[in-house]
Amino acid sequence: MRTMIEPVAALINSFTKLPGVGHKTAMRYAFCVLNMPEEQAAEFVKAITEAKAKVHFCPECGNFTDRSPCVACERGDKSVVCVVKEPKDVLAMERISSYRGVFHVLHGTISPLDNRSPDDIRIKELIKRVAAGGIREVILATNPDVQGEATAAYIAKLLKPLGVKVTRIAQGISMGSELEFADEVTLSHALENRKEV
Amino acid sequence: MRTMIEPVAALINSFTKLPGVGHKTAMRYAFCVLNMPEEQAAEFVKAITEAKAKVHFCPECGNFTDRSPCVACERGDKSVVCVVKEPKDVLAMERISSYRGVFHVLHGTISPLDNRSPDDIRIKELIKRVAAGGIREVILATNPDVQGEATAAYIAKLLKPLGVKVTRIAQGISMGSELEFADEVTLSHALENRKEV
Repeated sequence: MRTMIEPVAALINSFTKLPGVGHKTAMRYAFCVLNMPEEQAAEFVKAITEAKAKVHFCPECGNFTDRSPCVACERGDKSVVCVVKEPKDVLAMERISSYRGVFHVLHGTISPLDNRSPDDIRIKELIKRVAAGGIREVILATNPDVQGEATAAYIAKLLKPLGVKVTRIAQGISMGSELEFADEVTLSHALENRKEV
Repeated sequence: MRTMIEPVAALINSFTKLPGVGHKTAMRYAFCVLNMPEEQAAEFVKAITEAKAKVHFCPECGNFTDRSPCVACERGDKSVVCVVKEPKDVLAMERISSYRGVFHVLHGTISPLDNRSPDDIRIKELIKRVAAGGIREVILATNPDVQGEATAAYIAKLLKPLGVKVTRIAQGISMGSELEFADEVTLSHALENRKEV
């Protein structure tokens, strides 16, 4: 005898679409929503609806925005462009207040295994931006993993002929981490890029 | 310079209302929703809206239902009532097809520390159901923790005078677990309740 009713099953199913959410977690979320006060559930629905209706990609940098151009493009120093993989990386960069430039969101990295070629991410748009002039430095801030490194190398090769300074964020051991637990690649990067004190 | 826009912030905030979801997870969920195809997001909204509109508590057993009486109350053997803490416990019980009775959802357990007295959970309703007759056994299936045990003991004391058989689900070591890792209370329960083979 199963009494899982259709509206609850549909709600659980919707929650399983979220990243890292399996059936059990989705069930917890669904029961939480069912127990929510009506206003809170209505707010939830409104938040999803409004976000989908108002938020779009900035035509310039590709970040999520509710206006054109986005706040980052409007206020940032347009001569420095930081290239990141995803919108959430923009948020990470913004947490360090020392960066004053603008962004370029690729929406992915080159990954032949996942059938993602350079044409599938926003590389053409970046080249166009740089070719249009006014940019003196492009900082490649893709993740330091295989795809991120490959994408950074690919972009660097395309940008160099345009006469723009291309840099890559530094790699080394993280603040607060311990040498003992650092992997070999990270440690060798840290050693290679050592600075005189 | 912060560019977190209001609709995205509201969406993240809504997700933090779910159990165990902090700011980082909520951000992941929000970005997933923003990247969803429109239809999928619409389905999500519809699932929440419909669940809140259609699903209510069964007046008889207190479980979530979209009809009155609920499927479990309609189809189950009304002479046996299984008392559980939450609607999700009903789903757990239903996974074992050997149980054919009906349910009674308490919506909580007695917990003086959380200011939850017997009057705050559906104990009165249970007494009324039993007093109305036709029930030969009440199975107390609250969790085997402090609150669950206290609640079971409290209910048992109230039900006994009504002349109904009151049972408590067995405690012992779980299938597949190892003696070595069983806690003392569980192990002593398992020893106490040993069966002749």
